[in-house]
Amino acid sequence: MLEDKNKQRTSLAELGEFGLINHLTEHFKIYNESTSKGVGDDCAVISEKKDEIVVSTDLLIEGVHFDLSYVPLKHLGYKAIMVNLSDVYAMNATAKQVTVSIAVSNRFPLEALEELYAGIQLACDTYKVDLIGGDTTSSTTGLLISVTAIGSAAKESLAYRDGAKPTDLIVLTGDVGAAYLGLQVLEREKEVFKVNPQSQPDLEAYSYLIERQLKPEARKDIHRLLKDLEVQPTSMIDVSDGLSSELMHICTQSNTGCNLYEDKLPLDPQVVSTCEEFNIDSTMVALSGGEDYELLFTISINDFDKIKGNPNLTVIGHITDKNEGMNLVTRANQQIKLKAQGWNSFEEES
Amino acid sequence: MLEDKNKQRTSLAELGEFGLINHLTEHFKIYNESTSKGVGDDCAVISEKKDEIVVSTDLLIEGVHFDLSYVPLKHLGYKAIMVNLSDVYAMNATAKQVTVSIAVSNRFPLEALEELYAGIQLACDTYKVDLIGGDTTSSTTGLLISVTAIGSAAKESLAYRDGAKPTDLIVLTGDVGAAYLGLQVLEREKEVFKVNPQSQPDLEAYSYLIERQLKPEARKDIHRLLKDLEVQPTSMIDVSDGLSSELMHICTQSNTGCNLYEDKLPLDPQVVSTCEEFNIDSTMVALSGGEDYELLFTISINDFDKIKGNPNLTVIGHITDKNEGMNLVTRANQQIKLKAQGWNSFEEES
Repeated sequence: MLEDKNKQRTSLAELGEFGLINHLTEHFKIYNESTSKGVGDDCAVISEKKDEIVVSTDLLIEGVHFDLSYVPLKHLGYKAIMVNLSDVYAMNATAKQVTVSIAVSNRFPLEALEELYAGIQLACDTYKVDLIGGDTTSSTTGLLISVTAIGSAAKESLAYRDGAKPTDLIVLTGDVGAAYLGLQVLEREKEVFKVNPQSQPDLEAYSYLIERQLKPEARKDIHRLLKDLEVQPTSMIDVSDGLSSELMHICTQSNTGCNLYEDKLPLDPQVVSTCEEFNIDSTMVALSGGEDYELLFTISINDFDKIKGNPNLTVIGHITDKNEGMNLVTRANQQIKLKAQGWNSFEEES
Repeated sequence: MLEDKNKQRTSLAELGEFGLINHLTEHFKIYNESTSKGVGDDCAVISEKKDEIVVSTDLLIEGVHFDLSYVPLKHLGYKAIMVNLSDVYAMNATAKQVTVSIAVSNRFPLEALEELYAGIQLACDTYKVDLIGGDTTSSTTGLLISVTAIGSAAKESLAYRDGAKPTDLIVLTGDVGAAYLGLQVLEREKEVFKVNPQSQPDLEAYSYLIERQLKPEARKDIHRLLKDLEVQPTSMIDVSDGLSSELMHICTQSNTGCNLYEDKLPLDPQVVSTCEEFNIDSTMVALSGGEDYELLFTISINDFDKIKGNPNLTVIGHITDKNEGMNLVTRANQQIKLKAQGWNSFEEES
């Protein structure tokens, strides 16, 4: 059969705001007992009598945080949820609810928003998180997504940024640098496509990098893993702006220094080979890349045996006294000062 | 002394995202015990072991929801908080925390954001609400504000939209229509200003209308008032999109009809005189105006004596069986069908 080229495009004005929210959210399931009331009233209602509530919020803006020329809307919806759940997991807490607000210009038909919400729903279903509210409105330009994530944890298991102590080990989940390189590959393909729209890119060699950029997964598993290992992290943060700047946040807020070991940084083989191809330093990418959504945390050195050899966790350094400074120890055993090269959206503009 | 015309304009890129958030929020106070951790970690932390938690979120977008040519930034910040607190109060709950995210283009200097946050802070201080988080990023165009408000209430005092019963009385706080007319006056002055920038408008006759539009106050007092009167509302909603459409939400979700009495609608004298001047029907303005941020609720007829004569509350109709429909009873004692003419932001665009 021939493909129907006249895919239906439904304008948003036909549905109106209430119709739109209902239409987009009607198939979402509720997974958590604590969600007493979801979408449909002035407020959602949460019953959480035993644990502390944690709340985080993030904005994603077209042209600043994402480029729809290579980010599929479904992936974007998924990632918007991941970015926020990652903040909840970074408190060593369990994510339970999200609100999602979108502002969207008339150039988006209903079908585009359905794609976006399919990604949001996939994320909610996979991570057992309830969509409990939001706002849907028009924008004068592109697409904007604002997500608030809510979770809970027993008071004693919460991990803040300010609890690291000298001699604590610095631990990283997964590997870093791939999401940044994925973005570089996608940007390069976009330029190639501009010159030759017929080109068929072979992205096989970059599959892991692109997946890390387009469909990151937040580390829901770590809270459970640490509980099972009976390890309480002394501090924790998620790696969204780059490992280096996140570690500096922990040290600054904990009033400590650190030694981070270059030869311990966990890199995927695709990161190493693509850094060679692009002629960039893999350590720089690992330290400053960002968007990895891994968790960075510190543990007492007494807990080392509990985590030793766990394939999810890599010890990448240790916390020191503040006056020793924040350092990278290179493969050549030189200490150099860590630099924060985290992303500043205000600098990207011009 | 001469005024310094070279007011300092600090670019946002100079501060970066972290510096900006810290700078804008450093003078905010914490009022609520339940706020365990505010700005500065991956998440804020709330301890609320006794009561239910309510959550609401709203987006305000330049060019769609506000026009900076006549809305001062400080007022805008104040109003952004009010809009969200109003949703919390509409659950018959107490507002305790807000998160505020903003996206802003480079054309705004730091001093503009300071103005905006001065309004946010004034609202937080006046309403004893804690700013606990947010996100600050750049936008490719104008200003966008996303607020999430969090509150709490005992389970038995929460009021939803779906609890109205036939014979219940329909009660409105304050008066309606003024905010809409305030907008009309401001729009007219903007047109006059375009033609003659030297014109000095005399807005004295519209002072109440303009204040209702630019600096609305959410009805924090009603939760307390109803508690003191020992009245539990059977349903409740806030009047943001227009009285008519809000009442229809209550009836639809409660599966009832209603009779709303035209001669009971509370109108400020400035609303009446300005409607005459603009040659528009004051009932239409009262029903469809929107942005009043008053509370609309229903109570058992048995509670009538408790609220009778209270200057904050007006009985404007009663709930009926569903098959009687949703009606306006005119001054001439005719029943006409209520229409929802609430605001649809997707229609405003084009």
